Amino acid sequence: MAKLGSVEGRDGAAGLVEVLDYVRRHGTSTRSALVEATGLSRVSVAQRLAALLERELVAEGDLARSTGGRAPRTLRFRREAGYLLVADIGATSVDVAVADLSGAILAHAAEAADVADGPEVILSRAEELFEDCRAQASPLPGELWGIGIGVPGPVEFESGRPVTPPIMPGWNGYPVRERFAHHGVPVWVDNDANVMALGEYTAGLGRGTENFVYVKIGTGIGAGVIVRGALHRGTQGCAGDIGHIQVPVAGRDVICRCGNIDCLEALAGGAALQRDAEEAAREGRSPFLRAMLDENGSLEASDVAIAAAHGDVTSLELFANAGRHVGGVIAGIVNFFNPSLVVIGGGGARAGDHLLASIRETVYRRSLPLATRNLVIHRSQLGGQEGVIGAAAMVTNELFAPDFLARWLDSGSPVGQAHAVPA
Amino acid sequence: MAKLGSVEGRDGAAGLVEVLDYVRRHGTSTRSALVEATGLSRVSVAQRLAALLERELVAEGDLARSTGGRAPRTLRFRREAGYLLVADIGATSVDVAVADLSGAILAHAAEAADVADGPEVILSRAEELFEDCRAQASPLPGELWGIGIGVPGPVEFESGRPVTPPIMPGWNGYPVRERFAHHGVPVWVDNDANVMALGEYTAGLGRGTENFVYVKIGTGIGAGVIVRGALHRGTQGCAGDIGHIQVPVAGRDVICRCGNIDCLEALAGGAALQRDAEEAAREGRSPFLRAMLDENGSLEASDVAIAAAHGDVTSLELFANAGRHVGGVIAGIVNFFNPSLVVIGGGGARAGDHLLASIRETVYRRSLPLATRNLVIHRSQLGGQEGVIGAAAMVTNELFAPDFLARWLDSGSPVGQAHAVPA
Repeated sequence: MAKLGSVEGRDGAAGLVEVLDYVRRHGTSTRSALVEATGLSRVSVAQRLAALLERELVAEGDLARSTGGRAPRTLRFRREAGYLLVADIGATSVDVAVADLSGAILAHAAEAADVADGPEVILSRAEELFEDCRAQASPLPGELWGIGIGVPGPVEFESGRPVTPPIMPGWNGYPVRERFAHHGVPVWVDNDANVMALGEYTAGLGRGTENFVYVKIGTGIGAGVIVRGALHRGTQGCAGDIGHIQVPVAGRDVICRCGNIDCLEALAGGAALQRDAEEAAREGRSPFLRAMLDENGSLEASDVAIAAAHGDVTSLELFANAGRHVGGVIAGIVNFFNPSLVVIGGGGARAGDHLLASIRETVYRRSLPLATRNLVIHRSQLGGQEGVIGAAAMVTNELFAPDFLARWLDSGSPVGQAHAVPA
Repeated sequence: MAKLGSVEGRDGAAGLVEVLDYVRRHGTSTRSALVEATGLSRVSVAQRLAALLERELVAEGDLARSTGGRAPRTLRFRREAGYLLVADIGATSVDVAVADLSGAILAHAAEAADVADGPEVILSRAEELFEDCRAQASPLPGELWGIGIGVPGPVEFESGRPVTPPIMPGWNGYPVRERFAHHGVPVWVDNDANVMALGEYTAGLGRGTENFVYVKIGTGIGAGVIVRGALHRGTQGCAGDIGHIQVPVAGRDVICRCGNIDCLEALAGGAALQRDAEEAAREGRSPFLRAMLDENGSLEASDVAIAAAHGDVTSLELFANAGRHVGGVIAGIVNFFNPSLVVIGGGGARAGDHLLASIRETVYRRSLPLATRNLVIHRSQLGGQEGVIGAAAMVTNELFAPDFLARWLDSGSPVGQAHAVPA
């Protein structure tokens, strides 16, 4: 456990930060545990707890096990003191949720959407779904404390604006944060893969894993990087943008939406799979895909998964090829970053075993033996909810970051607070 | 400045750690600064300083500027309390140095060597050079406190042993740490590129840069990764091993020493350059290289640099090609990791402007615009000393890491201490 800083001599809200932080991180706690962890005297701890109890951020709970004398009263963070609204905007879907202050999802709603319809349409739809979720979660615990949004493109985290997102026409520089400012609470916006990596770290396979990479294979391809237990956003906030890494392909110059050729996304993303499947159907290489194309007029990546599940050889080959490309890029990442875990998420995680098998085979063949000695490559187990779980985790991380917490603690809640200032 | 932990109530060596740490990191300091930074009372600070002064780890210096009353006496870390021996083993060289406890180099010696001669030969030579350096630096400050070694291959940092290093035959699993155990001080061993990245962070272009990548282009190619101001070693300690990332090449299956094909190192490392230059010379594509080959019987990478400096078109092309391959891999790293700085080191940094220009051109073309918005790609300015500077930084980081420091502080020096235990 990290040692907490000395708070002797500091006054006001700043003095409460460490105590609240400890209670929040440890679920339930006791006064003795707080004295030991903070190095504060019993009197100081008691004073700070009284202030937090008065603000209804901490509550007294059951009796803890006695270690000799009178059984101590447990303390718990009041996760029901407020709630969060979160949205995971995908290329072809909008997922929204209401979460409590521990990040637990209280209500969830999702529907198909096309991110290319632009921010006005998509974010208005998210607002409507927020209302559905609020109704579902009613009675709501406390008032709204914060909003978190994930979008499928690079985001400048400080300003909350998408920056030249290849698969999001109309979103470049759009002030997503300001769009939600009317709620009167702080809003944080990040890239979807970053948010999903936080979700895996909070509640998924990456729980407690210090160094891992989450790879989202959807219409686009992106990654979120956890280093020493925290999201690595990089200098411009665009770390993890692996969809535009060039992959080795012989005799094929595929132009990507970003303008470069042979980007991973252009060869192995959902849109690429769809394009290659339609081509195979039209050229008569797969009667199965042909029949689906004739029936629906177009093919989705999920159709290819269905065809593969039915043993269609062309579809199996498409997934094997995509897996080789993705695996090649992950192999490079494994050599460079040496993570202990790679989590595969997005639609690609639900595409059956062929894609995953092909990714694994390539990584184990192409990475250094030492780097893969204890490496685990696994599908996300969060069933596509890693986006909303991670968006909630992003908001709680920011709300309770010491500097930001110190700014709102006196008023009792972050309502009306400006956004976190850049570090 | 990071807040120091509360030390009230703790006793013995552990209580001294924060005070020594603060004095060491700040060069010169005062009692008032210590009181403010640690949150300790003046009496506690005075007690701890007395213990450190008695152990001769801290000394009183000049008078500091008065801020009203009597001018305070400055305090400084006694960097001359002991010294370090460090070695940077390269594929074709051994560099050793004596450093003081601040990591400053007091004496330096280097000579050509072939790492393939094996650990017994190479490390015995390093021991001899240590003696030369000790003589050079005489009179030595205090006694030997620690040893740091960098080697050109993957190292399991906890055990200090090279693991299947492709360009280091005979070194696999060799107990480098135990080889130096007779000195009676702790020994740390790491990959050379990791150590060089630490050198850049300590004294080079990366000074104070939170996220950057050091790329060493020598006989082999490797990288060291600094994340949030600390070396990222990865799960098995082999992060940064970028020499075996596969690069896109059309119609050419180059077998690498690691057993895979088309690894970056096999196409753009010093050995690859040498091989391609000799081939060009024999095939009559470069009269300049041919003349050098006829005269010397073989070509070195440095010969190609000389030929390029004389305008030999074939040599220029070899560097441009190598730069494109290295640049392609760095472009992927920039997309994934989004650093603010890439430092190019090793022999490749001394190969003239063509290699660097080609790397830059490729990275700026192939990386996402957002990721390169503020990216700087530069040659190391440490003149090849980043290895020994970094090895010294590795040793001081480890010697003064709180847990290790607490173990030896009572005895006054780390002499006779076992190695840092794995976290």
